[in-house]
Amino acid sequence: MAEFVSRFDTLRWRGERLEMIDQRVLPAEIRYLAFDSALTVADGIRDMVVRGAPAIGCAAAYGVALDALRLQQKSPAEFNRDLGSAFCALAASRPTAVNLFWALARMRRAWEACRDAAPAQSAQRLLEEAHAIFKDDVAANRSMGRHGAELIPDGASILTHCNAGALATAGHGTALGVIRSAIESGKKVSVIADETRPFLQGARLTAWELMQDDIPVTLIADNAAGHLMSRGEIDVVIVGADRIAANGDVANKIGTYQVAVLAQRHRIPFYVAAPLSTIDAAIASGADIPIEERDVDEVLGYRDLRWAPVEAIARNPVFDVTPAELVTALITERGTVPAPDAGKISKLLNGS
Amino acid sequence: MAEFVSRFDTLRWRGERLEMIDQRVLPAEIRYLAFDSALTVADGIRDMVVRGAPAIGCAAAYGVALDALRLQQKSPAEFNRDLGSAFCALAASRPTAVNLFWALARMRRAWEACRDAAPAQSAQRLLEEAHAIFKDDVAANRSMGRHGAELIPDGASILTHCNAGALATAGHGTALGVIRSAIESGKKVSVIADETRPFLQGARLTAWELMQDDIPVTLIADNAAGHLMSRGEIDVVIVGADRIAANGDVANKIGTYQVAVLAQRHRIPFYVAAPLSTIDAAIASGADIPIEERDVDEVLGYRDLRWAPVEAIARNPVFDVTPAELVTALITERGTVPAPDAGKISKLLNGS
Repeated sequence: MAEFVSRFDTLRWRGERLEMIDQRVLPAEIRYLAFDSALTVADGIRDMVVRGAPAIGCAAAYGVALDALRLQQKSPAEFNRDLGSAFCALAASRPTAVNLFWALARMRRAWEACRDAAPAQSAQRLLEEAHAIFKDDVAANRSMGRHGAELIPDGASILTHCNAGALATAGHGTALGVIRSAIESGKKVSVIADETRPFLQGARLTAWELMQDDIPVTLIADNAAGHLMSRGEIDVVIVGADRIAANGDVANKIGTYQVAVLAQRHRIPFYVAAPLSTIDAAIASGADIPIEERDVDEVLGYRDLRWAPVEAIARNPVFDVTPAELVTALITERGTVPAPDAGKISKLLNGS
Repeated sequence: MAEFVSRFDTLRWRGERLEMIDQRVLPAEIRYLAFDSALTVADGIRDMVVRGAPAIGCAAAYGVALDALRLQQKSPAEFNRDLGSAFCALAASRPTAVNLFWALARMRRAWEACRDAAPAQSAQRLLEEAHAIFKDDVAANRSMGRHGAELIPDGASILTHCNAGALATAGHGTALGVIRSAIESGKKVSVIADETRPFLQGARLTAWELMQDDIPVTLIADNAAGHLMSRGEIDVVIVGADRIAANGDVANKIGTYQVAVLAQRHRIPFYVAAPLSTIDAAIASGADIPIEERDVDEVLGYRDLRWAPVEAIARNPVFDVTPAELVTALITERGTVPAPDAGKISKLLNGS
């Protein structure tokens, strides 16, 4: 079949501002929020208007560009000082997804390459770089999709956790991009989506996004994944990633580790689809990846509804680490890495 | 310390009727509903006013007694015919928890023993039998607690899934009974409670019940159990059961199997606390245990709040099967059975 055409924009540049679909209110409401500064983008990332490692990276890049445009009438000294603050604010928004820091590092290199230019020129250059990061992400997802699609058997029932879709990226998606590409290549597949408590990315985002494309999707409680595996109802697991260590350990949405352990027990392939920008070569193993803990209100209820007792205590770690030994293959835009380890990942990053 | 004194009643006999705490609205509301017939009790079981295998058994026994009392003015022939319908209605209320069928079989034996008596006498006899089932359940839980407490290390952080507490039984609880008994014996322990989607028995019932007794409890999303195990934050897992097959396979709340697989990987003891009435010797293995699937609305949202997309498809199996090989020990009122298998369970049932 032909390529899927997206029916929504996770992020889009409109005139002089960034618009992002508000992922906190999907699918009940489809609303786009406008952002005109690095600080408001940082708040949007922290508050989960946008989430998903690659999408956070794109948003941060546009956040830098927004401040560069806002500051372009200032003197070069002021421009450089204030733009430095923009980087700091964006870097402090969320700790785990490395694409945020990767995108900021790429924007910083672009900035440094035009330090001697007039602020207005620098601002244009930084906006171009943000656009390039956005386009590169879509291209990486398309490439990842082609590589990954080969691993998906025709007729497969595919379990995914959280949302690693178009909503988590600039478009097409990582894990869901592989699924879209498999369908584009003529395969029939169906998806089982973990609801992904506490933020319900599976129930709200993955189900909605796949339904937009008429891809068959069945929602389950996170607790039901092992049961369905034990009944032979899942053929493949595919998830995204927020940060991959140099040895192949994968930080991803809380609950991913459990799915990987279950997949191993049931001899079901467990694939991680992520762009090279998700690999953090500076971190040796998953043990060193910072794991964000968010507001426990997310666990005590959902949005305005609270179901836990008054004064109940909770914990809310929102990522976990899946050791590389549980990963059947890593799917990147540069190809597939079976049984990833430090040697293979180093080779992948060096393009050899 | 002294014995815990319960601050609520899961079920209680008041005059000529059964009252049950409404577990659908806990902890926001503490309300007792009154039941005056087998049919209304069957509805209460089906609608989850009462849940938890032993509590369902007690409720069903009282349901039979209620109809016996209601019908005691009828002729013996009418009494026997209509009481037969009461058994049928109660047996059809829920399929997985075997304590329901166990309690009905015990009530049927009591009924058969007084078939030739006047209906009013039979009704009294059946009410006595329901009271006996209730008292036996509390006694079994106390005994289970004493046996199980020996397995709990002082200072342990104990993970539990769903609610296997006083709210799931006539009192004291199975898994939570072991925890209460461990504390009564002088040990300091703390509990980590899986929230247990979709019905949130952990968030609503286990957290509330333990807080009533000032037992330290921390609530987590079901997705976080594996992460906490990987960080060394869980020492023991203890859960209840809805039906145990002759070979030791355990049907319990959906998600239990996943916890057991994770516990095995992390070499954390995984205990199942259940009375002998939960063992179904007629079923060879877990594969033959009927697994109830409930209304998918439970997965698409929570109560009146729906977060999944309109027209989303879902699956809602509410139990799963943990193979005996993953069970470190079974804790019963007759003692502890390490590494349960068909031979040991047969010996246990024969009292040898």
